[in-house]
Amino acid sequence: MLNPSHNTFRDVLASEKLVRVVGAHTALGAALVHEAGFQAVWASSFEVSAARCLPDASVLTMSDYLESAAHMQKAVPIPVIADCDTGYGNNLNVAHMVHEYEAAGITAVCIEDKIFPKMNSFADDEHTLVETKVFANRLAVAKSAQQADDFFVIARTEALISGRGVDEALERCYAYADAGADAVLIHSKARTEVDVVAFLAEWDKRRPVVIVPTTYPGWHTAAAAKHGVSVIVYANQGLRATVHMLRKTFRRIYTEGDSASIEDTITPISEIFALQRLDEWQALER
Amino acid sequence: MLNPSHNTFRDVLASEKLVRVVGAHTALGAALVHEAGFQAVWASSFEVSAARCLPDASVLTMSDYLESAAHMQKAVPIPVIADCDTGYGNNLNVAHMVHEYEAAGITAVCIEDKIFPKMNSFADDEHTLVETKVFANRLAVAKSAQQADDFFVIARTEALISGRGVDEALERCYAYADAGADAVLIHSKARTEVDVVAFLAEWDKRRPVVIVPTTYPGWHTAAAAKHGVSVIVYANQGLRATVHMLRKTFRRIYTEGDSASIEDTITPISEIFALQRLDEWQALER
Amino acid sequence: MLNPSHNTFRDVLASEKLVRVVGAHTALGAALVHEAGFQAVWASSFEVSAARCLPDASVLTMSDYLESAAHMQKAVPIPVIADCDTGYGNNLNVAHMVHEYEAAGITAVCIEDKIFPKMNSFADDEHTLVETKVFANRLAVAKSAQQADDFFVIARTEALISGRGVDEALERCYAYADAGADAVLIHSKARTEVDVVAFLAEWDKRRPVVIVPTTYPGWHTAAAAKHGVSVIVYANQGLRATVHMLRKTFRRIYTEGDSASIEDTITPISEIFALQRLDEWQALER
Amino acid sequence: MLNPSHNTFRDVLASEKLVRVVGAHTALGAALVHEAGFQAVWASSFEVSAARCLPDASVLTMSDYLESAAHMQKAVPIPVIADCDTGYGNNLNVAHMVHEYEAAGITAVCIEDKIFPKMNSFADDEHTLVETKVFANRLAVAKSAQQADDFFVIARTEALISGRGVDEALERCYAYADAGADAVLIHSKARTEVDVVAFLAEWDKRRPVVIVPTTYPGWHTAAAAKHGVSVIVYANQGLRATVHMLRKTFRRIYTEGDSASIEDTITPISEIFALQRLDEWQALER
Repeated sequence: MLNPSHNTFRDVLASEKLVRVVGAHTALGAALVHEAGFQAVWASSFEVSAARCLPDASVLTMSDYLESAAHMQKAVPIPVIADCDTGYGNNLNVAHMVHEYEAAGITAVCIEDKIFPKMNSFADDEHTLVETKVFANRLAVAKSAQQADDFFVIARTEALISGRGVDEALERCYAYADAGADAVLIHSKARTEVDVVAFLAEWDKRRPVVIVPTTYPGWHTAAAAKHGVSVIVYANQGLRATVHMLRKTFRRIYTEGDSASIEDTITPISEIFALQRLDEWQALER
Repeated sequence: MLNPSHNTFRDVLASEKLVRVVGAHTALGAALVHEAGFQAVWASSFEVSAARCLPDASVLTMSDYLESAAHMQKAVPIPVIADCDTGYGNNLNVAHMVHEYEAAGITAVCIEDKIFPKMNSFADDEHTLVETKVFANRLAVAKSAQQADDFFVIARTEALISGRGVDEALERCYAYADAGADAVLIHSKARTEVDVVAFLAEWDKRRPVVIVPTTYPGWHTAAAAKHGVSVIVYANQGLRATVHMLRKTFRRIYTEGDSASIEDTITPISEIFALQRLDEWQALER
Repeated sequence: MLNPSHNTFRDVLASEKLVRVVGAHTALGAALVHEAGFQAVWASSFEVSAARCLPDASVLTMSDYLESAAHMQKAVPIPVIADCDTGYGNNLNVAHMVHEYEAAGITAVCIEDKIFPKMNSFADDEHTLVETKVFANRLAVAKSAQQADDFFVIARTEALISGRGVDEALERCYAYADAGADAVLIHSKARTEVDVVAFLAEWDKRRPVVIVPTTYPGWHTAAAAKHGVSVIVYANQGLRATVHMLRKTFRRIYTEGDSASIEDTITPISEIFALQRLDEWQALER
Repeated sequence: MLNPSHNTFRDVLASEKLVRVVGAHTALGAALVHEAGFQAVWASSFEVSAARCLPDASVLTMSDYLESAAHMQKAVPIPVIADCDTGYGNNLNVAHMVHEYEAAGITAVCIEDKIFPKMNSFADDEHTLVETKVFANRLAVAKSAQQADDFFVIARTEALISGRGVDEALERCYAYADAGADAVLIHSKARTEVDVVAFLAEWDKRRPVVIVPTTYPGWHTAAAAKHGVSVIVYANQGLRATVHMLRKTFRRIYTEGDSASIEDTITPISEIFALQRLDEWQALER
């Protein structure tokens, strides 16, 4: 079928010991994430904003992020997890966000406990957190706004990002779980997994734990699973690989004066057609 | 400035002996085209539709293509040439198209002489052409719909794509030029530049000629210029490089179980921040 | 609930002897259609294009019409029937249209047998029809593109609009029904219902019949039902009432120099707040 | 011309002693504002959100509001003033807002000194203000973000709305003017113009003053001008007239069972065609 239905993130989590997820900013990127064998796509706000040459700082609107996530979800049979930053404002914004994402077919969203407008977690900035009980209430509002039972809300704490330590991260995640969050995401910008490991050692497993090992890329999937991680998100490697490759490719065309020598490092048009499912589409008109 | 103004395609053409252009489908791609030294960006409908995992067959709407082109134009100080396929219908659609693209800050569009809905030129399909005088009239409508004098309309003939030969291509391009087109694009899917060279040998230079050497990538810029080409468009190499690289990157993460080994083939986050001009944006809030 | 779910058009048709439908171009208009007691909303392409000050001539894109229909559907618990003109092109466009409308939560679409781009049925123009078998095939493609069983496709014939007579209208509607259309719409621009009555007298009832009595507004619901009509669409009266009223209101403010005298012909702000469900939204933040 | 150019709000203000402005939420509404003789259109966030059946509470995004404003501007030769609420966040959001509105052809925006997310000024709510110097700085950022010299930024104070009194309103407006605002808007929800008159009596005229007499509709234009008002905005009467009329119209169709009796209170289709400029559009295809 040209528009395959997709399973929910809740389904995927139920059927896999460890769910591996990769970030994308286009439907095509999402399709390649699926093709590689991953079980979900992260509709990364960092990737989406970078693709627009704008900072990952709540400058783009929910409409922009939703559109990207919806495009991705339509292209793949695996679920898209929408990175929804802070939820775009207060409780009213979060409720509206859930209405809109669910209406667009998205089955999982992630919101974080920073104030709106936020700044990218790896940027040198303040990263002010919302009070724990305010954010817990926000999660409860999100959960009560969903229509389908299997809509999934991930609560991401930026406690470590804002320098607050593992104890506060735990306290926040317990509060978020108790307010209704379906999973917690413990984010870290440390160069190793030490803080995350400390968090996992204490966590009582009342909800699955999600990690994003951008700054500790050497922590192996198997090790993470052993420590109790349920979901690993490779959030932005696709974007960064794309920039690396486009720079190299464009520089060569510019310098060499033709594009002959890059032909074997670019996918043939026939394979692009296959990704577009051109044959199946053409069959409709015959 | 965070939102630099951009020059027009007419300006670029006036100041360069040969204009080199690269295709993109995101603002970030456009920024990298500019960074590499090219003088314009091709908002490729093949790239934009492939990025949505949909065929390049007039399935996406003018709204989709316009949004992509507008995002690109906002990110670069060089002009974007919008690949507008057939003009999206009849004369009314073409007039509306010009109104909308011009309102979005685009200074050059390209329309081709195939019937709507069209099929990608490299696909095995009919490629039926609009009658010459009908398309010439369409170009006249496009030109009369523009507000600013320097808006630029490129007439693309698919005569060679549809198997009609160089003579018809010439006849069509003369008619299009005389109807008001600012340049002509002679498209070819031949494995060499022979047909294009034959066209150029006869062309009386009443308008600049644009080529898209996708299938004859070895024809050097200098050779093309010598034969009278004014604009070369590397229309889809960026997309194809991206697919190649994402496949490789995702496969490695999937197979290796962590992302450590790809770190040196992906751009560091600090450089993504630089492309987003994060420092300048952050300065606004201090 | 702030985002109520809605029933399908198929459900409504199954539960009502006669379904009465009113056209709208905003979510608010749709909410007022529902408030008045009607059972469905017609997302009218005439209303939507007029609201943009553009002709109803396939100038706006599917994206524009879909956005309007989706906004309407989110605001009401009754189904929206999306007026999809010709289906926006060939079979590929129709399949994509079904994918997109269904993904947006729309449960019924209507497509007509005119060539793309079309012109409004009441405009003095050619109104060229697609061949019967081509359009029947298009309907089959539409039906095979749907995911949910209860998605509903209405086939509208413009046979009477194009001056072809009742016999051809019948022949076309039988072909469309047999190709899979869930209902047929017999459109007429005659000043009386005579042609429609003639059609109904012959129609063998293999599918429900929809009418749009714009030019014969005096044909009563009860009479139409007696002749076998299942669905009546008051397609554009809301738009026309709006224009009438805005002209009167703006002229008075302009002439009188203040807005005191119009206060009793405009809805109080408190009632607008009620339509926005402001109390319920505010409760989320308390 | 089908897409007329429009003058700037700065031009209008320079050429008129008193500028009268009416709110709208569609391009058609804007066209009727122009037809009635008014000199500018207010792209009202209250109207736009109500048209979506959503509260005027920063729930819709800048993308939603911008799209509506851009549609309006394309339809009229008079300027649209975009009601931009709080500017959608912090200084980064305001800069991005200016970039986007200016790129869409809007020549005047209005931002207010409430915290994001805001609540409609007439709603019973807290209406917390941003500190004066923070908002003054925000205005300076807005002004430095514009490209064209004649882009116009109106600073709206909600001092009276939040119960702070005329002195604070004055102090804030002086600070905003000195930070670069091109005009100030003094908003009031009092049942008479008394507070506004008190403000005007003290105001040293360093910038033009804008008022929105929603709750004191009897204050005549001539009186307001005499007190020093430069711009009067009838911000939401069009929306409220529309709701009043649609309710009446739909109720009659529902009750009477046909639409014959409303025919003389709805605009004929021929006049809708004229508003769509159908003749001119059709001429393009002949």
